[in-house]
Amino acid sequence: MHLPKHVTLKEVGPRDGLQNEKVHMATADKVQLVDLLSQTGLNYIEVTSFVHPKWIPQLADAVEVLQAIKREKDITYAALIPNLRGLERALQANIDEASVFMSASESHNQNNINKTVTETFPVLEEVVLGAKAAGKRVRGYISTVIGCPYEGYIQPEQVLRVADKLLEMDVAEISLGDTIGVGVPTQVERLLEELLKRYPAEKFAMHFHDTRGTALTNIVKSLEMGITKFDSALGGLGGCPYAKGASGNVATEDLLYLFDEMGIHTGIEMNAVLEAATFVEKKLGKPVASKQMAIVRNERSGQAL
Amino acid sequence: MHLPKHVTLKEVGPRDGLQNEKVHMATADKVQLVDLLSQTGLNYIEVTSFVHPKWIPQLADAVEVLQAIKREKDITYAALIPNLRGLERALQANIDEASVFMSASESHNQNNINKTVTETFPVLEEVVLGAKAAGKRVRGYISTVIGCPYEGYIQPEQVLRVADKLLEMDVAEISLGDTIGVGVPTQVERLLEELLKRYPAEKFAMHFHDTRGTALTNIVKSLEMGITKFDSALGGLGGCPYAKGASGNVATEDLLYLFDEMGIHTGIEMNAVLEAATFVEKKLGKPVASKQMAIVRNERSGQAL
Repeated sequence: MHLPKHVTLKEVGPRDGLQNEKVHMATADKVQLVDLLSQTGLNYIEVTSFVHPKWIPQLADAVEVLQAIKREKDITYAALIPNLRGLERALQANIDEASVFMSASESHNQNNINKTVTETFPVLEEVVLGAKAAGKRVRGYISTVIGCPYEGYIQPEQVLRVADKLLEMDVAEISLGDTIGVGVPTQVERLLEELLKRYPAEKFAMHFHDTRGTALTNIVKSLEMGITKFDSALGGLGGCPYAKGASGNVATEDLLYLFDEMGIHTGIEMNAVLEAATFVEKKLGKPVASKQMAIVRNERSGQAL
Repeated sequence: MHLPKHVTLKEVGPRDGLQNEKVHMATADKVQLVDLLSQTGLNYIEVTSFVHPKWIPQLADAVEVLQAIKREKDITYAALIPNLRGLERALQANIDEASVFMSASESHNQNNINKTVTETFPVLEEVVLGAKAAGKRVRGYISTVIGCPYEGYIQPEQVLRVADKLLEMDVAEISLGDTIGVGVPTQVERLLEELLKRYPAEKFAMHFHDTRGTALTNIVKSLEMGITKFDSALGGLGGCPYAKGASGNVATEDLLYLFDEMGIHTGIEMNAVLEAATFVEKKLGKPVASKQMAIVRNERSGQAL
């Protein structure tokens, strides 16, 4: 296999994970979670979201969390930003990076953002320009890049259309999201073949949910195609409120197991990640979905016998 | 991706799954389970095991189950056979195929079979000769082909040594088992590269457990290397009694989702498999581990709201 030697994991658990959990984590616990994540070797943490609390009440404490976390140098602390009002608050809370977002699928975009794809571009552009004027790096998320809960399979051309626009706005990178977790490696290959005809692999990160169990297969295919940045969430947190049955992001610790065993360097310590995942289990009051944590629980219960 | 157009799933749930479940399924329920599986489009079902009930009490009713199931033509009904005494009983119960088994790892073989690898060969050869004399096809399992709970990583040479012997005995195919579910695609590639230097891909089936979440990644790599036969267990049943934390076989329905979406033909109906998995959940009194069944449960609970 032709594989990269180093990859970067971008931790989205505190944002993409917690925003979809029914239990609302206390602000102090979120702060402690981010601080634990800062000790794992991760160099990117998406801490929270500035989407209006009416839509995401779980993350209404975005400012408080960003102000209370202990920041480590060499770690980028990012937040999701829907519009200029959100950007303003995020800049006051001193984010390192702004993430803008929209969908490749017209109907998912409409349901999620209440605008057509075309109407969304200028809103994102305002945020991109504003963030860059403030000296911040900008990341663009494209959701539903393979499947949409309303439209089914999404053609690579639909993704290209949005990627072109975001890269015209000069975002630093695009995270391609299989938001409802339906993709398989043949589809990932087809999508990336189209995108990589036009842009270098460094422009993209892959963001997989594990609804159907295929996330790691898609990550291996992406790796083989030269992608070196992957979003994941501690404990496989999250889901998608608009897609029934959707489970969470691919779990950071499951991705880490795969990379460690394949000899691909991440700079992340498994034990530190498992410690943070154990903290999340305690605070959410339920077992998380990852395979590595299932083993941890099993070993602990064995010791208790 | 260069992929085969057709693959065969070999259902091992009634044997490799149920032998490791704490809840002992009633004989009539096992019969009903096999009968449900016979309606899915599967053409291979490993029904039970003739290992002594002292070791596997869950499958003490091997003869009764084999005698009560409704056999469909075009389906091979197989059983695991440890020795000549087991073969004798299995032939009386009219099995279609005999599976013999041993480990690539010396210490796992010792723990599982209470013999060295070298001592095991003549025991297997007796069974192979006896089964073939009775006109039965024989399958050979090699366990711990990537990792061993006692020895760690297993070199391909250790697997080759056992494969050479089994193929000298003229078994029809060998199922290569990542018994404790620790493997990753680079290791699968390394193993298969060695084996396929010497033997055609048709001689091998892959048997993955999903302990670490890597089973489907290993299956995609195997597919890319020309393997077209895969063992799986309905609902991801099973585990390994000698490997703490080990979860079950890769789930038939998760494998089927992957193949269906990749456009690889299996001849198996997803809905029929989900029906059989629902039956298993009811009889074991717990949710099974597959991603597809998690979605089914989620959708049902949504409907009930």
